[in-house]
Amino acid sequence: MKILFSSILAVTLMLLFTVNVQAQENLSSGQKKEIISPEIHADNSVTFRLTAPNASSVSVTGDFLTSGENARMTKDADGVWSFTTKPFPSELYTYAFRVDGLEMNDPNNVYYRRDVASTLNVLLIGGGQADLYKVNSVPHGTIAKRWYKSPDNDMTRRITIYTPPGYEENKKSYPVLYLLHGMGGDEEAWMTLGRASQILDNLIAQGKAEPMIMVMPNGNVAQEAAPGESNLGFYKPQFRLPHTMDGKYEETFHEIIRFVDSQYRTIPKKKGRAIAGLSMGGFHTLHISRYYPKTFDYMGLFSAAIMPNEAVKSKVYDNIDGTLSAQKANGYTLYWIAIGKDDFLYQANIDYRKKLDGMNFPYVYRESEGGHTWKNWRIYLSEFLPMLFKNR
Amino acid sequence: MKILFSSILAVTLMLLFTVNVQAQENLSSGQKKEIISPEIHADNSVTFRLTAPNASSVSVTGDFLTSGENARMTKDADGVWSFTTKPFPSELYTYAFRVDGLEMNDPNNVYYRRDVASTLNVLLIGGGQADLYKVNSVPHGTIAKRWYKSPDNDMTRRITIYTPPGYEENKKSYPVLYLLHGMGGDEEAWMTLGRASQILDNLIAQGKAEPMIMVMPNGNVAQEAAPGESNLGFYKPQFRLPHTMDGKYEETFHEIIRFVDSQYRTIPKKKGRAIAGLSMGGFHTLHISRYYPKTFDYMGLFSAAIMPNEAVKSKVYDNIDGTLSAQKANGYTLYWIAIGKDDFLYQANIDYRKKLDGMNFPYVYRESEGGHTWKNWRIYLSEFLPMLFKNR
Repeated sequence: MKILFSSILAVTLMLLFTVNVQAQENLSSGQKKEIISPEIHADNSVTFRLTAPNASSVSVTGDFLTSGENARMTKDADGVWSFTTKPFPSELYTYAFRVDGLEMNDPNNVYYRRDVASTLNVLLIGGGQADLYKVNSVPHGTIAKRWYKSPDNDMTRRITIYTPPGYEENKKSYPVLYLLHGMGGDEEAWMTLGRASQILDNLIAQGKAEPMIMVMPNGNVAQEAAPGESNLGFYKPQFRLPHTMDGKYEETFHEIIRFVDSQYRTIPKKKGRAIAGLSMGGFHTLHISRYYPKTFDYMGLFSAAIMPNEAVKSKVYDNIDGTLSAQKANGYTLYWIAIGKDDFLYQANIDYRKKLDGMNFPYVYRESEGGHTWKNWRIYLSEFLPMLFKNR
Repeated sequence: MKILFSSILAVTLMLLFTVNVQAQENLSSGQKKEIISPEIHADNSVTFRLTAPNASSVSVTGDFLTSGENARMTKDADGVWSFTTKPFPSELYTYAFRVDGLEMNDPNNVYYRRDVASTLNVLLIGGGQADLYKVNSVPHGTIAKRWYKSPDNDMTRRITIYTPPGYEENKKSYPVLYLLHGMGGDEEAWMTLGRASQILDNLIAQGKAEPMIMVMPNGNVAQEAAPGESNLGFYKPQFRLPHTMDGKYEETFHEIIRFVDSQYRTIPKKKGRAIAGLSMGGFHTLHISRYYPKTFDYMGLFSAAIMPNEAVKSKVYDNIDGTLSAQKANGYTLYWIAIGKDDFLYQANIDYRKKLDGMNFPYVYRESEGGHTWKNWRIYLSEFLPMLFKNR
């Protein structure tokens, strides 16, 4: 009986599958043979594959190669091009193919990340740092995409909010980390490129981070929501938007804090709040924390876009010494400045630290290898989270 | 002063941008000139563009073309290929390029949808039905990705939950629609391919649908979560999974209802519950609603994968007449069966309706044009939602 049903089911499934394929007939990928790409081997080497029988030159390119390096693929008798790398260190990598000079994504890999206006395939090599970026068999927080009212910006705005495992089952109050993206990013960036929810899930499960709420707002005050998520529809995203670094976000940030404190079981005081951001989000962290100098107990400036040059006279820098002094006088637990040796903002961060040194403004400095990359920002987040909310 | 700052800011931004580009140097798209693709014109015609100076043949292919049709693009002096279509009816379309026989995505369009193991670019033409699929300037519900305990499947499982605008600000209780995906889908499918949250936001704003909670579970009981969202990592998704249509989902569905009723302000009775699904999800709707015959007041079978053949002897069909009779005796408001004339499941739905007719089992039948497509499932959802929860 069971066998009979199974065979009928199998026929039905074949029908289903056939129809599915037919519906996509005119969209078939030209991939005649079922292939796996990327294939990650036990030693952390990777084989990339692409079926392209008519191509005369195919290579793979990605951030695991040294700058400018292009790995030439070779073609087999079935028209499948392939290339196997040397073993990689554990990391989340991006890559693409180049076919006769034209870049394209890997049609056998459905995992993409958008970075401003480009989308790249991703692959994850475990066994080290990137194990924190995996979805592991640990309790998972809830991710909510919500909209809050921003009367000062005359719009409703989209926001991503992580609540930790257990939040819905108990009555506890939780501290809050406000985690800010960089230029060209939005309320999606820390989740997609930054793996923030995976990092926090894993660090909480390991007992290394306190359970906390993590709030990822959109720092582009000219924008209601990430590209594709507002009434502007499916437009081509731009790197540069108006009013991102002119003080408007700082002025209106109280709306976000009020929303979070009214909607979640927070610890609505300085000892229950942290703020951190990358690049432009580091700039925002610097300024928001001094605009609201009694509000945050932990600051994280990740590769911050600091411009403490005396020539900088934007309103956002008005009274910087006075507000930093107030922030210092009010006290805080951690002011963490992290930057890579090769970052183009390295000197600006040195200058800012000199300014802080001159004021006897306490901070902790973390210098890493590398530059202005998501690899570093994921590492900084992994290091910053365990330092938060330990002394509540 | 302001001007001086602006120019310094501009230089800094240029630096930022340059670095960003450099970081992606080996991933540059080969797109030398900034182009827009797709460009949707006022008359709803569309221009597609691709920079591919070395290619000898480029075409665009998509579900707006008749089956097998391929629109040849032409190359200009800059190596940019383009093609402008005739005006399209309002719809959410998918498309790809074909370059010298190799299919590729549009590198200038960052909007993708995954359907099982393929990803396709999307474009939306407004001015008609697809206005319901847009993010419009209306109040938006909250989308949460959560995990619930499924002891009967020995796992925790991921689920997507929409709560309507206003849910967090008031104390009301809301009815619940359980909305089920098809084979090859998961807890993401109705959100990404189905535009379910946009449809419900818009229908609520128009006063056509009651505010409700919409629950989108994962119907593959062998799977904790959508591909890429579980500890299986980034693997190639498969169309066929074990235990999708053998009764296991039906048997364990009470876990989902219990989770939702315990976590949200629901109306935890028959009059406050609806269930609907497409294809395999229509099969699940049929069986779950008779397994729990006092539980749902509204059923929606969208292109349901019905196999009421006498030869079908799976456990899931055990006592189908008895349970359907119980469901009928308990009463319900709507049993809605929708299918397209060209659907390969058309005859199976006719056979099932004959069975229901023989039992004097009331239902409403909706026959549409077309076949087994997301276009139809979005239309069915748009028609089904306004019929729900009107007589509470």
